[in-house]
Amino acid sequence: MSLDTTSPRPRIARLKAAMAEKGIDALVSFKPEHTFYMSGFNPVLYSHPVVMILPAEGEPTLLVHALRDAHGRDEGFVEDTRAYGVWSTTKTMGPTWPEALQAILTEKGLGAATIGMEADSTPMARWTQVQALVPDAKFADSSKLIDRCRLIKDADEIEMARVAAGLADLGMDAAIAALAAGGTEREAHTASLIAMNEHWTHALPDTIEVADFGGLEGGMVNGLATWVLSGDRMFRNCDNSIARKPEQGETCAIFIWAVANGIHAENERTVAFGAVPDKRRRALETILKIREEITPVMKPGTPLAELYHITKRGLTEAGYEANIPGRIGHTIGIGAHEHFSLDGKTDVILEPGMLFTLEPNLRVPDQGVATQISDTILITEDGHDFLTKSRGGYIEV
Amino acid sequence: MSLDTTSPRPRIARLKAAMAEKGIDALVSFKPEHTFYMSGFNPVLYSHPVVMILPAEGEPTLLVHALRDAHGRDEGFVEDTRAYGVWSTTKTMGPTWPEALQAILTEKGLGAATIGMEADSTPMARWTQVQALVPDAKFADSSKLIDRCRLIKDADEIEMARVAAGLADLGMDAAIAALAAGGTEREAHTASLIAMNEHWTHALPDTIEVADFGGLEGGMVNGLATWVLSGDRMFRNCDNSIARKPEQGETCAIFIWAVANGIHAENERTVAFGAVPDKRRRALETILKIREEITPVMKPGTPLAELYHITKRGLTEAGYEANIPGRIGHTIGIGAHEHFSLDGKTDVILEPGMLFTLEPNLRVPDQGVATQISDTILITEDGHDFLTKSRGGYIEV
Repeated sequence: MSLDTTSPRPRIARLKAAMAEKGIDALVSFKPEHTFYMSGFNPVLYSHPVVMILPAEGEPTLLVHALRDAHGRDEGFVEDTRAYGVWSTTKTMGPTWPEALQAILTEKGLGAATIGMEADSTPMARWTQVQALVPDAKFADSSKLIDRCRLIKDADEIEMARVAAGLADLGMDAAIAALAAGGTEREAHTASLIAMNEHWTHALPDTIEVADFGGLEGGMVNGLATWVLSGDRMFRNCDNSIARKPEQGETCAIFIWAVANGIHAENERTVAFGAVPDKRRRALETILKIREEITPVMKPGTPLAELYHITKRGLTEAGYEANIPGRIGHTIGIGAHEHFSLDGKTDVILEPGMLFTLEPNLRVPDQGVATQISDTILITEDGHDFLTKSRGGYIEV
Repeated sequence: MSLDTTSPRPRIARLKAAMAEKGIDALVSFKPEHTFYMSGFNPVLYSHPVVMILPAEGEPTLLVHALRDAHGRDEGFVEDTRAYGVWSTTKTMGPTWPEALQAILTEKGLGAATIGMEADSTPMARWTQVQALVPDAKFADSSKLIDRCRLIKDADEIEMARVAAGLADLGMDAAIAALAAGGTEREAHTASLIAMNEHWTHALPDTIEVADFGGLEGGMVNGLATWVLSGDRMFRNCDNSIARKPEQGETCAIFIWAVANGIHAENERTVAFGAVPDKRRRALETILKIREEITPVMKPGTPLAELYHITKRGLTEAGYEANIPGRIGHTIGIGAHEHFSLDGKTDVILEPGMLFTLEPNLRVPDQGVATQISDTILITEDGHDFLTKSRGGYIEV
């Protein structure tokens, strides 16, 4: 169920403006994140494709398999929802999506149009299949066009990012408490999952879903995720947790990713066990100082790359010039990792509604030193808002 | 961590035999499920591609980003693991995967070879990018070749399917107990997740992971999944659970998908609340009778389509000829939904090592009647084995 199935989404107008600029007459999308972006519908399972058709002029159409027809109409905000396939007594446009899509494109007068599809996600076979449906049409890559529109979040997305961040904060508190009580990586993982799911179960309304976006062979029913890596396992960056208890003097990283109605938040913290060696404390303190330097410039008008430059300068001054990371965060939203990086090359200027992770961190494997701190940041009219609010700093347990 | 990083996998020999038959000199794969299939390595996050190169002759090569280098070497069973990108002091073949892949293909003498890539999953842009690396090579679609090899499971896969099925059974027991105690859909969901995760945390070794396969924008850290749909919500087939308590006389479907080291099991049951109307009881009894008719033919030599024909005949005899489902199950393994359906057209003959779901079911929306029962079945030398063992039949709470 979606929060609001009627209000217009500014993102649709932004997409149409970008299409006009690029001479694209219609977007045809199969990517789960993007069909959701343009329709508000997440069927969770994508073994039967969901197809979104967004013409520059006129009404959008959402095409779903007959067995998702009622669900799509109820959950999505697209008026014109059509069905393909055979299921029960539902009337459909034909047994398969290609014939239904062909009929829709013809009906909308797009047989010889310029059609945008995402070349970075549309499989080769499907791209060719769509081309064959409208042999007189031209095809353009719309990956970057949609990715750039996603940079600015709409009000409904920001509201959900706050809900996701709240879930992530609860998960973080539970994981830290489990570690402080002497728990293993896995025990902290499971305590965190339980805290987030219990909150969703008892405190959040039916309108809030925690499903994520699946692929061709499965679905992602529950996108509330935690992993915990202790000691040298921090250099894995991502791995399933094991039954290992952090030892005194070690640090341990907790990673939480939460999602609410398709919008993600990320919350990551480093916990120190007892008195850690100076090299580990110094790394954490260096990162905390850099975060303090970055904080005041997180506001409209600042080039995103400036956040990276501050990090690079701070790490160099502290003697970590051999350990400068390639990026210090990424945009976030419908994807846990959206496609713009906080690196030295990005051409993005901060604007209200942008959502990204702030995560300058250090990895010095030959010294056994690693930090992992990340927050989800929203750029507001006059500055920024930390959506994740877990205690930061030097967390000793 | 993987269970066993040394033993040869018969699937590699099967793949090479299929490649020889199709005249394919090497497979190049980016699909998370398939790079894992051929290497045993799941980095969980795929924002930096993992590339598997499997030549028909000679050693396979696994190419990973530098930050996954140690992880890939430790977890995978491919001897020759190479790295690209920049991370810490790891030596790599170059800053990006295309130049590393180009060097590997050239080194293996594949510059003018016939290369198989999966057209059903390789994005259009990436396909073109690989073609440009070896302009004299020919490219063929290897989707079906790999999918067909996946039909037969190796011993390590069967072992993990049993572990996944055991997790799913625990999740099912917990969900049924929560519903019997008067719980909502969401409470049953969360009780089930907790049971599976607690078991993983406390009873399963570090060598067993519950990560699933992610996409370009995220990862699937935990693939233990439950959803519960009550009353008419069963017609949704898949949706996040809500705070709804099933009413007396209704049925409620519980869906559990579990995963262990990349191999899935599915367990689905229908629970009846109190005395359900005859129409609902009759639908469940019809399905149970059909399952009993199917059970003895689940053995080597039976055409998979025969299971569908028995279902169609049974439903017709019981007066449900307007409600014959399109399929009554699917193969399962690295994918929760692998690509062969139990329908009337499939050309698969059952062989030992095949793994599929058995799920003949009814949906009669205009009567408010639905059933959902599914088990994960392994074909053995002399018959079959139900890997999911939850109590079946008519479950009244």
